[in-house]
Amino acid sequence: MIFTSDNAFGTSPEILEALTRVNVGAVASYGADDVTARLTKKFSDVFERDVAVFPVATGTAANSLALSVFTPPYGAIYCHEFAHVNVDECGAPEMFSGGAKLVGIGGANGKIDADALALKLSLPRKGDVHQVVPSTLTITQSNELGGVYTLAELHRLTELARQYELHVHMDGARFANALVSLGCTPAEMTWKSGIDVLSFGATKNGAMAAEAVVFFDPAKAADFAFRRKRAGHLFSKMRFLSVQLEAYLENDLWLRNARHANAMSKRLADGLLTIDGVTLGSPVDANEVFVRLPIALFKRLMKSEAAFYPWDNAEDAKEGHVRQLVRLVTSFATKEDEVDRFLTLAKG
Amino acid sequence: MIFTSDNAFGTSPEILEALTRVNVGAVASYGADDVTARLTKKFSDVFERDVAVFPVATGTAANSLALSVFTPPYGAIYCHEFAHVNVDECGAPEMFSGGAKLVGIGGANGKIDADALALKLSLPRKGDVHQVVPSTLTITQSNELGGVYTLAELHRLTELARQYELHVHMDGARFANALVSLGCTPAEMTWKSGIDVLSFGATKNGAMAAEAVVFFDPAKAADFAFRRKRAGHLFSKMRFLSVQLEAYLENDLWLRNARHANAMSKRLADGLLTIDGVTLGSPVDANEVFVRLPIALFKRLMKSEAAFYPWDNAEDAKEGHVRQLVRLVTSFATKEDEVDRFLTLAKG
Amino acid sequence: MIFTSDNAFGTSPEILEALTRVNVGAVASYGADDVTARLTKKFSDVFERDVAVFPVATGTAANSLALSVFTPPYGAIYCHEFAHVNVDECGAPEMFSGGAKLVGIGGANGKIDADALALKLSLPRKGDVHQVVPSTLTITQSNELGGVYTLAELHRLTELARQYELHVHMDGARFANALVSLGCTPAEMTWKSGIDVLSFGATKNGAMAAEAVVFFDPAKAADFAFRRKRAGHLFSKMRFLSVQLEAYLENDLWLRNARHANAMSKRLADGLLTIDGVTLGSPVDANEVFVRLPIALFKRLMKSEAAFYPWDNAEDAKEGHVRQLVRLVTSFATKEDEVDRFLTLAKG
Amino acid sequence: MIFTSDNAFGTSPEILEALTRVNVGAVASYGADDVTARLTKKFSDVFERDVAVFPVATGTAANSLALSVFTPPYGAIYCHEFAHVNVDECGAPEMFSGGAKLVGIGGANGKIDADALALKLSLPRKGDVHQVVPSTLTITQSNELGGVYTLAELHRLTELARQYELHVHMDGARFANALVSLGCTPAEMTWKSGIDVLSFGATKNGAMAAEAVVFFDPAKAADFAFRRKRAGHLFSKMRFLSVQLEAYLENDLWLRNARHANAMSKRLADGLLTIDGVTLGSPVDANEVFVRLPIALFKRLMKSEAAFYPWDNAEDAKEGHVRQLVRLVTSFATKEDEVDRFLTLAKG
Repeated sequence: MIFTSDNAFGTSPEILEALTRVNVGAVASYGADDVTARLTKKFSDVFERDVAVFPVATGTAANSLALSVFTPPYGAIYCHEFAHVNVDECGAPEMFSGGAKLVGIGGANGKIDADALALKLSLPRKGDVHQVVPSTLTITQSNELGGVYTLAELHRLTELARQYELHVHMDGARFANALVSLGCTPAEMTWKSGIDVLSFGATKNGAMAAEAVVFFDPAKAADFAFRRKRAGHLFSKMRFLSVQLEAYLENDLWLRNARHANAMSKRLADGLLTIDGVTLGSPVDANEVFVRLPIALFKRLMKSEAAFYPWDNAEDAKEGHVRQLVRLVTSFATKEDEVDRFLTLAKG
Repeated sequence: MIFTSDNAFGTSPEILEALTRVNVGAVASYGADDVTARLTKKFSDVFERDVAVFPVATGTAANSLALSVFTPPYGAIYCHEFAHVNVDECGAPEMFSGGAKLVGIGGANGKIDADALALKLSLPRKGDVHQVVPSTLTITQSNELGGVYTLAELHRLTELARQYELHVHMDGARFANALVSLGCTPAEMTWKSGIDVLSFGATKNGAMAAEAVVFFDPAKAADFAFRRKRAGHLFSKMRFLSVQLEAYLENDLWLRNARHANAMSKRLADGLLTIDGVTLGSPVDANEVFVRLPIALFKRLMKSEAAFYPWDNAEDAKEGHVRQLVRLVTSFATKEDEVDRFLTLAKG
Repeated sequence: MIFTSDNAFGTSPEILEALTRVNVGAVASYGADDVTARLTKKFSDVFERDVAVFPVATGTAANSLALSVFTPPYGAIYCHEFAHVNVDECGAPEMFSGGAKLVGIGGANGKIDADALALKLSLPRKGDVHQVVPSTLTITQSNELGGVYTLAELHRLTELARQYELHVHMDGARFANALVSLGCTPAEMTWKSGIDVLSFGATKNGAMAAEAVVFFDPAKAADFAFRRKRAGHLFSKMRFLSVQLEAYLENDLWLRNARHANAMSKRLADGLLTIDGVTLGSPVDANEVFVRLPIALFKRLMKSEAAFYPWDNAEDAKEGHVRQLVRLVTSFATKEDEVDRFLTLAKG
Repeated sequence: MIFTSDNAFGTSPEILEALTRVNVGAVASYGADDVTARLTKKFSDVFERDVAVFPVATGTAANSLALSVFTPPYGAIYCHEFAHVNVDECGAPEMFSGGAKLVGIGGANGKIDADALALKLSLPRKGDVHQVVPSTLTITQSNELGGVYTLAELHRLTELARQYELHVHMDGARFANALVSLGCTPAEMTWKSGIDVLSFGATKNGAMAAEAVVFFDPAKAADFAFRRKRAGHLFSKMRFLSVQLEAYLENDLWLRNARHANAMSKRLADGLLTIDGVTLGSPVDANEVFVRLPIALFKRLMKSEAAFYPWDNAEDAKEGHVRQLVRLVTSFATKEDEVDRFLTLAKG
């Protein structure tokens, strides 16, 4: 009964098999191999336009490299105050951009509040050298509290960005989970909604260690390859990175995995909410469940064999602590039986 | 007949199998798993002292992160002028250190000339704020021209480093190849020779994408984990990185692979040197062959199905080009038959 | 009637004269001159302990260099959300630290709220590599809203910093104004209150372009000289920078200038508050006046020959705008008559 | 008898007087004042085209900021191996560019050897992500060994730069000394010779602390103001920086000062070369004299009241030391009598 994170789980068998399948002979290194070449076609098909694709191994690398292309060292990156790039990457965006400033915006359920963003963007005086230059907006889809922006919400944010000449990045560490949640096309959730560059996550949803940075205007990717190499993120035996992404997209593995994970979260949330005193912390749109547990229940579960995290939260610290906010994450590999055993335990 | 690079080859079957073996259940992420825990013990055994070990996926990451621990932004890193960190990493050491300066030292056969280093180190006036602070020496073993430093040569260099209070890094992208070439112990080639931190390469010698940064004084590794995360080089599903290193060290796989690669280079060099007009470019100590080929032979081979690289070299450009320096690299997966076919082709 | 900023005014005649006085003959450059040597003694006397002193020409340089000594690239700097380092230096602290993160804390009247700081400091899990390492606290005295921390308030903040092993920096761009406001000694307002390093401002209070970075533990200043040079802030003809600071401290010029500026702000605030509808924006502790003016009055004054700034403020933007917050700054060179003419104009 | 450096001398009286003259009333800060506004016109006149001008206080700042505009973090800056930016700025260009690599090129008399540069530029494979991207060439005029490039020499170098799409920077810390040496126009020595951006030095030739960064295509200066502020090099009381440059250009003060300094160096060199055993270290084109002194003479002079520097030089260290290379610098304020007394002393 592991609900700590979707990255606690292993690799989809299809992806492991692909690694073995591609382990034949000697091929050109550093991405000049056939598997990597095929990725551009594959991603262009998935996104219904010509894209530039760059595989990397971690989400932090994908996000930071993508942001660094559009953010000068004297630039500002707007993000949700709880965004992974802001609180969970040890300053990686600052490193890769050469010192840009992340500006956290508030908003319920992990979603950037559009009015708060509009206000923040209206403050710097254009050309004022005393202030960092508004450069990039980054949106996490699905976000750090398990929420999924609607297309309308995305449009509202990216239109604000356009108005202030910002580029827009999407942190799609859980892209597939958001996509199947909305039921829209990959194109609709990205460039048709004003996204310039995407961190297309695969690791949390079944890959071993593989993400893709996808530029919807390949011309804007001109210096990316240099930035990736310089950051030590260009793999010599690239085929093993690329083939993970290929297998992930093949036969809709990515969508199947995501649908399963989301369904498990829904099952888990539905079950928990039948328990007296359990309340929703944030809407369950994808594969993360945020609920507040009565303290006694929280303590009992923490001592059990089930694994999950209390969510560090100023609010919880303050409220006399009659309930504790917790996060439970399900994955492509979470078993229905595991969810049910946890619910039985909780109802216990 | 691929002799372009050892990273053109795939993954040792033992390592692929280990990936499958470890793909069971959910485990703690970001390196808190059992496989990663076992690595410290394993590496401490191999190096005969307590070490701190950090797996990363690329050699550029290993080198740059290791150097950044010992080199302030206003520091100097001394290296061979042809060192990989200096000419083949797109400025990664500069990025990770926050802008340190690499100072290239000359020396035959890819080895730093100790006298040249001594002279260079004697020049900056201690405490002179106008000059970057001598901070680190990095030695590649085996080096970029296929050479292997003797233990005496290593001692000479690291004693100079000590004298000027520099820390010493070893770029061991081809560590195993050097080790079996010298026939000494890992301890002798590293900390007993004055090395503080090692980039222990596995990728070129059979891993899929795995290197280890090894600190011989764990106390000096205090901030490494932050630097690795911040650079996007901390894997969430770390077990898959760690297990590559475990399998690599198991049953002497690493030594067997390296012995084979070295033997193939020796066979290749011996054969080529019997051809009229072929001369040695640099001694063949490990798994790389540098030879000068008569231009006609060079052109014929370049048009053949064999693959290898001419070596960009100012000297060659100048000398009227009667001969061209080329690099031929063998690997754990290079077949004896492949070597022999190439020799037959060359002898034409 | 200029109340835009204290840096709109020129140089105290005593300081200009000192520049001429010191313009004799050839002396050692880069700070090896006698004037610079005398500064250490002078500042040590002023602060009642041995200090290390480094002159620089701008406040941004002083702040960023000071912070960079105590903040690694993967570190966090805690500051008031409106702090000059956070909003008015175009990311200089990020540049000098190599990418550290500034964490803004709220608090009324430009003062960091101690409870909010305590909560923020309690959140990161010690040793958690996903989060930047809490490293430094910076306190502005007097602050960006003209407020002056009491000694008790300083102690409360610096004790929190100690508890979490942070170093503490004081941005003293208006140090003298705060000092004469509190009526305490320089020692009491700095190291006796837990300050490790001070940006001692002189420019705003009468120097041409001179600030001093003062370390209360000289041992911690070991790498400062390298950082200053590397940032282009080491003057070759240093005597002209140092002598400004010397003249500033001589015969209590700094204290006289600050007392005058503060008195002018008090006179200005007292007069304005007699006008119907004018309210205080923030307590007037030093040489800045923040008041809310009825919109009609605001517009009339903005069209007059008087110069001052409306204060960009989200709150004002929201409140239907019946009043506008403005900032009025007085300086060592502000004339009493100028203040009175402005009051007459306002009372109109 | 001070010949240590031209920055050992003070400020031209005309410049000191200008500081006093401009110290009247309150004016807009941060460069929005009239004096600064006039500079653009003045420099455009001097250079016979519309230029963008940015005053800063130090040469290191001017060089590093100028280079950072044209050099990405993954870029290479080509310079003479002894260039000030390479050996005397503690890594400032690396800091300001975010980690670019300086590539030192050899060449006699402090001049970049054009053939060596051509060879170096021909080596990187265009688009090869493993190598830093050739971005900028920087030429010092007059250079670190007192040499002045002829216009033909400048053209040869800048044409090479164009061929490889590099921007060209001129480090003109001693610009005026070079200019009067060549007897050409400022336009001829800069943009007409292919220079994109100039560090126009004034400090060494009579200013207190003032340099100007001059862009010959103002459109390329778009982000400079942000970079200057972010580096702490934007002065609040800018008029005092700008007026130094204004006074420097007024009534040909800069040219008169430079002619005098050059004449003093010529007088000094001519005199020294009449002494038995004294040989020229490098041609005396401007205001620096490099001569080799017989060891006995060298030692005697070092013990005298005359001040100058032996030149750290590997060559000298090696040659058995029968002669020592020394540097003697003259300035706008060097007295003829001082030179003559030194010559008398040397002739002993």
